[in-house]
Amino acid sequence: MANRELLKQLIETFTCLPGVGRKTAQRFVYHLLERDRPGGAALAELLRETVEKVGNCEHCRMFTEHPQCAICRDPGRDRALICVVENPADLMALEANTNYRGLYFVLHGKLSPLDNIGPREIGLDLLEQTLRKNSVRELILATGTTVEGDVTAHVIGELAARCRTKTTRIAQGVPVGGELEYVDASTLAQAFNTRTRVGGDGAQS
Amino acid sequence: MANRELLKQLIETFTCLPGVGRKTAQRFVYHLLERDRPGGAALAELLRETVEKVGNCEHCRMFTEHPQCAICRDPGRDRALICVVENPADLMALEANTNYRGLYFVLHGKLSPLDNIGPREIGLDLLEQTLRKNSVRELILATGTTVEGDVTAHVIGELAARCRTKTTRIAQGVPVGGELEYVDASTLAQAFNTRTRVGGDGAQS
Repeated sequence: MANRELLKQLIETFTCLPGVGRKTAQRFVYHLLERDRPGGAALAELLRETVEKVGNCEHCRMFTEHPQCAICRDPGRDRALICVVENPADLMALEANTNYRGLYFVLHGKLSPLDNIGPREIGLDLLEQTLRKNSVRELILATGTTVEGDVTAHVIGELAARCRTKTTRIAQGVPVGGELEYVDASTLAQAFNTRTRVGGDGAQS
Repeated sequence: MANRELLKQLIETFTCLPGVGRKTAQRFVYHLLERDRPGGAALAELLRETVEKVGNCEHCRMFTEHPQCAICRDPGRDRALICVVENPADLMALEANTNYRGLYFVLHGKLSPLDNIGPREIGLDLLEQTLRKNSVRELILATGTTVEGDVTAHVIGELAARCRTKTTRIAQGVPVGGELEYVDASTLAQAFNTRTRVGGDGAQS
C-alpha cells in the first residue's frame, strides 16, 4: 500500500460515506486541501476520537461518549415518560420538532427475523428491565410505519402490557398540509378508519 | 469545549465539506457509528496523514505527498508536452477521458486581480522557469472558457511566446451530441466563427 498515492486512498475511503461516490469524494478532498486544511485536520481528529470513544448510553442506547447520554443526564427531563425510536436520527427529529421532555429508548434497528435481528439485537431485554424497575407512566411508540416498524411496535406493546405499562403510539394519518387527492391509498384508508372525535377530547379510544 | 458532546462537534465539523449541510453530516456520522466504524477510523487516519503530508509537486504543482507527483515521476510520459489546467479536478478529468501522455501544470486558480490572484499566485514564475529550461515542444492551454479562464490563457500564451514555445488551446464549440437548437448563443457564434475545414487536415490555423 505504501506505493499507492495517499490522495487516491483518501478519495476511495471517503466513498464509504452514504451517498458519496468517487466524484463527490474527490471534490471533498480537493476542497479540504485547497481551501480548508485546518478544517480537514479538525475533522480527522474529531472522527478518530468519536470512533474510539462513542458508545451507547446505558439507559437509552443513544450514542454518547459518556456512560449516560446528555438527555438521560438532564435533571429537567421527565423520567416517567419513555419514547421508543428506531434510530438516533429519529430521536434528533423528535427533539428538534416537538416539545417532548421525557426520555428516549433507541432500538438501533427494527425486528427483522430474516436479517437475524431479534428482540435482543434491538435491546428489548434492557427496555424490559427499565419498565420493571422504574415507574414508567407512559411508553410512547414512535417506530416507523413500515411493516417491520408495525411489528416492532406490536411486540414492544405486548412487552409493555406484561410490565403493566401504559403504551401509546404516535398518530398515523394524512400529513399536515396534504391534499386528500394526493395522499396514498393506505394512508387515506388508515386515516379514515382511525378518525377522531371533534369537539370532544380528541382521543382515539 | 470539553462540555459539548463529541457527536455534535463532529456533525458540525463535517459541514465544512462542500455541499454537506447538517442533515447530511448527521447521516454520515450515524452511518459510520452504526455500520462502519473501521471505515471511520481509516478515514480519520488517512485524512490526518493527507492534510499533514500532501503538498504540491515541485514540477507541476499537482497535489502529492512526494517531492514530485506520480505523473512527473512516470518515465513513460512525454516531457516535451505540458498541459496547463486550472485545478487538480480538471487534470483528473483529462487523465480519465483522453489518451494524453505528456505532463501537466496546475494553476490552482485563474488570474483574478480583484481577488488578489496574480501571476505569482497561479505559479507562472515556475512555469516560465520550466519553459526556459526544458525543450518544451508544445504547451496546451486547457483553462476554462469563462472570462477569467480566457484572460489566464491569453497571459500564459504571451509568456510562452516570449519563451518561443509553441502554444495551443483546446477547441471550443458545440458539445458532442448537442442539438444546435439548444446550444447557447455565444457557443454557437464561437463555433461558427472558428469553423474548421472538412476533408483537409482539420487544423484551425
